[in-house]
Amino acid sequence: MMRTRPLKVALLGCGVVGSEVARIMTTHADDLTARIGAPVELAGIAVRRPDRVRKGVPAELITTDATALVKRGDVDVVVEVIGGIEPVRTLITTAFEHGASVVSANKALLAADGATLHAAAVQNGVDLYYEAAVAGAIPLIRPLRESLAGDKVNRVLGIVNGTTNFILDRMDSTGAGYSEALDEATALGYAEADPTADVEGFDAAAKAAILAGIAFHTRVTIDDVHREGLTEVTAADIASAKRMGCTVKLLAICERSADGRSVTARVHPAMIPLSHPLASVREAYNAVFVEADAAGQLMFYGPGAGGAPTASAVLGDLVAACRNKLAKTTGVGESAYTRLPVSPMGEVVTRYHISLDVADKPGVLAQVATVFAEHQVSIDTVRQQGKDGEASLVVVTHRAPDAALSATVEALRKLDTVRGVASIMRVEGE
Amino acid sequence: MMRTRPLKVALLGCGVVGSEVARIMTTHADDLTARIGAPVELAGIAVRRPDRVRKGVPAELITTDATALVKRGDVDVVVEVIGGIEPVRTLITTAFEHGASVVSANKALLAADGATLHAAAVQNGVDLYYEAAVAGAIPLIRPLRESLAGDKVNRVLGIVNGTTNFILDRMDSTGAGYSEALDEATALGYAEADPTADVEGFDAAAKAAILAGIAFHTRVTIDDVHREGLTEVTAADIASAKRMGCTVKLLAICERSADGRSVTARVHPAMIPLSHPLASVREAYNAVFVEADAAGQLMFYGPGAGGAPTASAVLGDLVAACRNKLAKTTGVGESAYTRLPVSPMGEVVTRYHISLDVADKPGVLAQVATVFAEHQVSIDTVRQQGKDGEASLVVVTHRAPDAALSATVEALRKLDTVRGVASIMRVEGE
Repeated sequence: MMRTRPLKVALLGCGVVGSEVARIMTTHADDLTARIGAPVELAGIAVRRPDRVRKGVPAELITTDATALVKRGDVDVVVEVIGGIEPVRTLITTAFEHGASVVSANKALLAADGATLHAAAVQNGVDLYYEAAVAGAIPLIRPLRESLAGDKVNRVLGIVNGTTNFILDRMDSTGAGYSEALDEATALGYAEADPTADVEGFDAAAKAAILAGIAFHTRVTIDDVHREGLTEVTAADIASAKRMGCTVKLLAICERSADGRSVTARVHPAMIPLSHPLASVREAYNAVFVEADAAGQLMFYGPGAGGAPTASAVLGDLVAACRNKLAKTTGVGESAYTRLPVSPMGEVVTRYHISLDVADKPGVLAQVATVFAEHQVSIDTVRQQGKDGEASLVVVTHRAPDAALSATVEALRKLDTVRGVASIMRVEGE
Repeated sequence: MMRTRPLKVALLGCGVVGSEVARIMTTHADDLTARIGAPVELAGIAVRRPDRVRKGVPAELITTDATALVKRGDVDVVVEVIGGIEPVRTLITTAFEHGASVVSANKALLAADGATLHAAAVQNGVDLYYEAAVAGAIPLIRPLRESLAGDKVNRVLGIVNGTTNFILDRMDSTGAGYSEALDEATALGYAEADPTADVEGFDAAAKAAILAGIAFHTRVTIDDVHREGLTEVTAADIASAKRMGCTVKLLAICERSADGRSVTARVHPAMIPLSHPLASVREAYNAVFVEADAAGQLMFYGPGAGGAPTASAVLGDLVAACRNKLAKTTGVGESAYTRLPVSPMGEVVTRYHISLDVADKPGVLAQVATVFAEHQVSIDTVRQQGKDGEASLVVVTHRAPDAALSATVEALRKLDTVRGVASIMRVEGE
């Protein structure tokens, strides 16, 4: 049908995502040809274990020498679905040096050292695409980078980790504790045997770094992202959230400061009102809520992980990279011209929900309120519950800097009448 | 900061959207320069009424001669926010002939004659972008055309008209009838003095045509779209939907047929389950739900209209068109290679909710059930309610072709025991 020479694609990695990419490239070859304007063929697939059976993947393309594959010189686009920092960073920069564009799903590498990769792509006149690195199949990078290119993004609030959303959804709907919900997630395949990267928020923090960089046209790495996991969220926290008309979500939050001179990026559990569009994101789904000056409030929703959804994002990027190769051009690359600094967590301004165990005697509320006032943290509501000499006090604040709240809590702990701080949770999405 | 010559933009129309575009081009000039790689300046603004005061719009740029403006030859991009078919079609093709790319928000023209415009753009080596034509600020065209370019879209279900969603949301939340809810929408500025284009579904049908063409890589015009408005939706229909755990939405539905050889596009009120992500889209918000082979279920949500949101979409396209001009390339254009025919409404397969007023006597249900069976429409559930010789029968069917359902209803009307068909509504989103 077409007379153009086929574009050649090298695949690095052939696990759940890679084998799905290879499968779709074969089954949808005619569609891809029509959409790109030339046929596209697999030039080679680099794997670590060549003897593993890969259904539907041509055996003659398998190699264990990834370096030789990216150095071939006749490869137009390298698709990287291995993950991790090294040897992948070296493989990608080598691919660039040999004239190949790269499509990657590697959030860890992009969040750790995206600047190096972007610079290398520019230097070699090729593309670096990574839609699959954030929230799987959900189109996010391209909408943020291109559709909103004429707008000013002020805030990104995202549920970007399916495992933790599944756990919190179960805790919310069944009243289960964290461990019980994690066990269920593991049994159903939503959590890995070692769930650390998910439940401690590392995965979400990498995605927050990538989103913040693109949304605010600056550079943000995972080290700039304040990170708290959800391992300390209790059934009592979820119940408290319900009483406030809220639910608890692990959120990745990227914000422009009020004066516009800096940005913040953080990942932590937070209460959000049930009326917020993110509150109804159930099970392992992901969703990203974007607030922009002109566009207003947008939300992007879909499956955040899995072989096929991630392959969908990879293939969309592959079509773009191939089209650019044919047109001898490149797409929109990194845009980091604002050079906005990333402020520390202490400067984040938000609301807080604090549960205190206190002595059930007169004057306690006055003492507690005085401590908040001394730190200029204004109280929105207080709820007292008491029985048998023990009482709990639930305080919800107005917006205050995180540092002021931390100092308040430290001072509260020193009060004789405060037996303990049962929980502190931020309140977002209002 | 930049040495490149400024890119010149001509604005056709300076109403709610156009004046917002002009305003943002001025206030965000530095950001646009950085994102495009060159400054961008307004070369002229064509309006019909030059004496109308336009706050923040430079008076010296105003002209009433749109034709002369697009013929100037030094204009890089024309932004068209006039609307309607002529003279806009001629202005756009003239702009193409004079080397300008075009960014348009014109759903009516794109849905009536997109093929002519796309062909003219290709012939002149320029871009035609129109993100703002469908669902305002919500990025849809670019995600469908580019992010999902490696996937196969099977269905698009959208709430793409804010006015009708506001009316249905009010009917659902307050129990109001259609007229009362329309009055409220008019009073609040959500409905125009003549609401025909919205409430009769013309606006949504234009958007359905555009979405279907892009989703299925084929050509669909507004004449191919089956269209039913919401003027006949009653408070009783909304109440019936609630009893089924559903709500009523005016949906634009684009589907690939089961055998993949044709597509359908339609706009009509439909019941959808409350658990469906579209069910929680309130007030005048828009949302589009997309089902693709690999990506699974995605949803895009946001404000579907308004000056600033629409300007956001226009400016995103403007940045893309300007970047392409600088790089001397063009973006992804029309992709209509599948040439899939559009099937008539009779071939659409879906479920139905039918309310019948029947005589309250033995044997009626058997008679009714026989008519359904004769037309091979299988019944899922039946609910009977009767008093004082009158009764109502609510039938929900399994999936059946629309033509079979129509024939069934015609036959039911002829039964002596059926006093009337109170309502027929399709059930979607399952």
